Amino acid sequence: MATIFTKIIQGEIPCHKVAENDSHIAFLDINPIAKGHALVVPKRETDYLFDLPDDLLGDTLIFAKRVAYAIDLALDPLRTGIIVEGLEVPHAHVHLVPIYHEGQNVSLRNKVQISEEEMKQIADAVASEVKL
Amino acid sequence: MATIFTKIIQGEIPCHKVAENDSHIAFLDINPIAKGHALVVPKRETDYLFDLPDDLLGDTLIFAKRVAYAIDLALDPLRTGIIVEGLEVPHAHVHLVPIYHEGQNVSLRNKVQISEEEMKQIADAVASEVKL
Repeated sequence: MATIFTKIIQGEIPCHKVAENDSHIAFLDINPIAKGHALVVPKRETDYLFDLPDDLLGDTLIFAKRVAYAIDLALDPLRTGIIVEGLEVPHAHVHLVPIYHEGQNVSLRNKVQISEEEMKQIADAVASEVKL
Repeated sequence: MATIFTKIIQGEIPCHKVAENDSHIAFLDINPIAKGHALVVPKRETDYLFDLPDDLLGDTLIFAKRVAYAIDLALDPLRTGIIVEGLEVPHAHVHLVPIYHEGQNVSLRNKVQISEEEMKQIADAVASEVKL
């Protein structure tokens, strides 16, 4: 069965997309832990991130860099950090988490509330800064 | 002034090393949040991880994969996750965090106590499984 991320990639489930190329997609996490929290997902279905072939694994972080720079330009955090846990969805993904202040608790357990309208505005702002 | 990580790379400060090649080093974090928590550090001094050139950035994750697989073999977590925050030391580094159970709070704020003797045993066990 296709993972939820494959359904997003195939357009069967909507998302707030911020970037896409042949091998990767990035969209806002629907359960954000910070404003602009995005997921970078390789289109190839692989459960464990480190099981991706080396070239695709390297490309995942390079694609993530493009998205992180767009987040940095659009939302002006101190920088954008990374979390990978991967036990919830069996399709490798990288969380990009804007860090707005020192001491921010960067954990997937610290959700924030962002309205659907603001999610759309954030996605548009980040997408407009992406240079792939 | 050289960063603390450069001093470790140059052997001026000791570490529990688990892997090294021409461009990267990995050693146990001295303030671990899980047994086997390691840092992957590109030898080139760059503050923000995403400011690394693309090839070196990609290689960082590929090197991290080799170390993560060694952690997985030596310590048998469910898998090994990633955290990058990077505000504390101005030298890019990737935290590799073994995840031993679902629901483990993967956060740099959750320290665990591990004795110096056990740190040495962990480093030896992981290092013996590294295949670069």
